[in-house]
Amino acid sequence: MSKLDWKAIEKQPSGSHFDLEQALDSLKYNSDGLIPAIAQQHDTGEVLMMAWMNKLSIEETLKTKQVCYWSRSRQTYWRKGESSGHQQTLISMATDCDADTLLLKVDQKGPACHTNRRSCFYNEITEEQVTISADPIA
Amino acid sequence: MSKLDWKAIEKQPSGSHFDLEQALDSLKYNSDGLIPAIAQQHDTGEVLMMAWMNKLSIEETLKTKQVCYWSRSRQTYWRKGESSGHQQTLISMATDCDADTLLLKVDQKGPACHTNRRSCFYNEITEEQVTISADPIA
Repeated sequence: MSKLDWKAIEKQPSGSHFDLEQALDSLKYNSDGLIPAIAQQHDTGEVLMMAWMNKLSIEETLKTKQVCYWSRSRQTYWRKGESSGHQQTLISMATDCDADTLLLKVDQKGPACHTNRRSCFYNEITEEQVTISADPIA
Repeated sequence: MSKLDWKAIEKQPSGSHFDLEQALDSLKYNSDGLIPAIAQQHDTGEVLMMAWMNKLSIEETLKTKQVCYWSRSRQTYWRKGESSGHQQTLISMATDCDADTLLLKVDQKGPACHTNRRSCFYNEITEEQVTISADPIA
């Protein structure tokens, strides 16, 4: 199957649609077959974390509605919340104009971060210093 | 200077602060010296785009409050909006628990996407198909 030409379709109006299988095969995975995925709480807009997916974890996430990443450190599928209970239910998924990043809108149960903070982005960086900006919630 | 131990500081309470220079040297850049940066509109929460920064572009962004990325395709600094006029003013910057991703809260002037859509994440992915979900605003 030929690749989906993301550059060509960018001119098309909203509502235009394309084959899923071709699109997933045409995402710009890195040399390890992975694509970064941003998880955002769907109702508050809070950005919770960024992790990595491969094609199979994307397909499983779309099918089960429970977010499944690929763990680069453990080199295995990482069904978010499987051990912690802090699942992410998928609300919607999108890719960007050049198809090299995913945005997942999710419903996060409890903390997203392994430190038990709601979001992983708790190290605030200013011109002066880095400051921890949140405490664990659980 | 020794590296900042992100794993050790994750136990510290909010308000704890650390040296900026040491922290920026301790971010987990990839083999090209780059770290992914998510840009989010600060007031609406909309995720606008993801691009890449190196240490110098982070420092310039903190200093000037105008977001500066590193363009992987053009291999040069990319002062967002320099040619398009669609600048991003930095509101705040954070890194995550393992210091391998940045989150920039910004005030985006006009569209963030080169297609003139507000956000780059306009290719919605469902179990059935991929659908273009937004039109250009400019």
